[in-house]
Amino acid sequence: MEILDLSLLKLELREFARARAWEKFHNPKNLSMALTCESAELLEIFQWLNEQDSYLDKLSPAQKEHAAQELADILIYATRMADILEINLVTAIKDKIKLNAQKYPPTTGVNYD
Amino acid sequence: MEILDLSLLKLELREFARARAWEKFHNPKNLSMALTCESAELLEIFQWLNEQDSYLDKLSPAQKEHAAQELADILIYATRMADILEINLVTAIKDKIKLNAQKYPPTTGVNYD
Amino acid sequence: MEILDLSLLKLELREFARARAWEKFHNPKNLSMALTCESAELLEIFQWLNEQDSYLDKLSPAQKEHAAQELADILIYATRMADILEINLVTAIKDKIKLNAQKYPPTTGVNYD
Amino acid sequence: MEILDLSLLKLELREFARARAWEKFHNPKNLSMALTCESAELLEIFQWLNEQDSYLDKLSPAQKEHAAQELADILIYATRMADILEINLVTAIKDKIKLNAQKYPPTTGVNYD
Repeated sequence: MEILDLSLLKLELREFARARAWEKFHNPKNLSMALTCESAELLEIFQWLNEQDSYLDKLSPAQKEHAAQELADILIYATRMADILEINLVTAIKDKIKLNAQKYPPTTGVNYD
Repeated sequence: MEILDLSLLKLELREFARARAWEKFHNPKNLSMALTCESAELLEIFQWLNEQDSYLDKLSPAQKEHAAQELADILIYATRMADILEINLVTAIKDKIKLNAQKYPPTTGVNYD
Repeated sequence: MEILDLSLLKLELREFARARAWEKFHNPKNLSMALTCESAELLEIFQWLNEQDSYLDKLSPAQKEHAAQELADILIYATRMADILEINLVTAIKDKIKLNAQKYPPTTGVNYD
Repeated sequence: MEILDLSLLKLELREFARARAWEKFHNPKNLSMALTCESAELLEIFQWLNEQDSYLDKLSPAQKEHAAQELADILIYATRMADILEINLVTAIKDKIKLNAQKYPPTTGVNYD
């Protein structure tokens, strides 16, 4: 069971920022930049690997650990941003999956061109 | 209370991909690209706003809704990727916060230069 | 012969911004965001294609045209930013290639891990 | 005068890749990832600075040098990608500026919302 208490994480990150006087840096604009930077660090792990070599069984333990850390950073910044923008992420995810299901009905193939 | 059941979300996204025959596209390399694309769409919302105008009270309801959708997409792809790389995100977040706390002790200011 | 007159392009983009009263938006921070957004739009073209299908002979004319437009946007924002930061790009490229040559000597293979 | 000979740069980068046996890595998909990674490194320089502090007179010489190096990397990867996709960047830039001028006529203000 992998349960993420986002209410608690929001409070924890709020306190983390407060204790370091980082609140003034944590506006949505800056956080969107930080999130993209972390996302690009994840991208960097895979940039020269071909698709088949990007799977778990081909990654070194260090690469897997690195990917886990970047994913964690992404979730941390996303949660911090959601807190500041007063967004409920559980609701947002539920809504977005519904939208995606309408946009890409299961019976049709998707055309990526 | 905002509780995200990541075990369930992983299963849901797995089934979503299966029903559309998208599994072959969902290798870690491609997912890291998709995650970065979504992150840049969030960035795009804020690119010409100054920091003060990026806060909730200055955003239109459409901008807030747009940000919520992009954050949801980011969490969806991050969760999908964690499923494929067999990463427990709750553990990864906990570990990363500990690392960050060591790297940036609360009593010292941070130097961003 | 493909010769890019960067002095002229800088002047042209300066005038383009002036005529639209965009100068106040074109600070280095915002331009770095715009550059990343354009770069991610290029990324988006290739996100679900495998490497072999990302080559020219597999792309549709529309995909090639799309890639050309995104590359143009990237060069436009990079040149605009260089103008504002008073960076000579010809010198910067020459210096960077020298650095890269030292970092990755031709006789050794590169280790991407 | 700042003149960039893109024909020559394309040849130089082609030879640089050949001498390191990097040609197999330089497909358009991978290069779009590398370009985005470099772009995010530029973004990282500015992520916690406010707009006013992102201008040249507030940056340290090291920060300016860092920005110049990232801009150079972006141009290098963009040129390498244009070579592989047989795109003439001078033409692409000219065409894109025309498109932008039609999209945003000089007399009207732009609405970023």
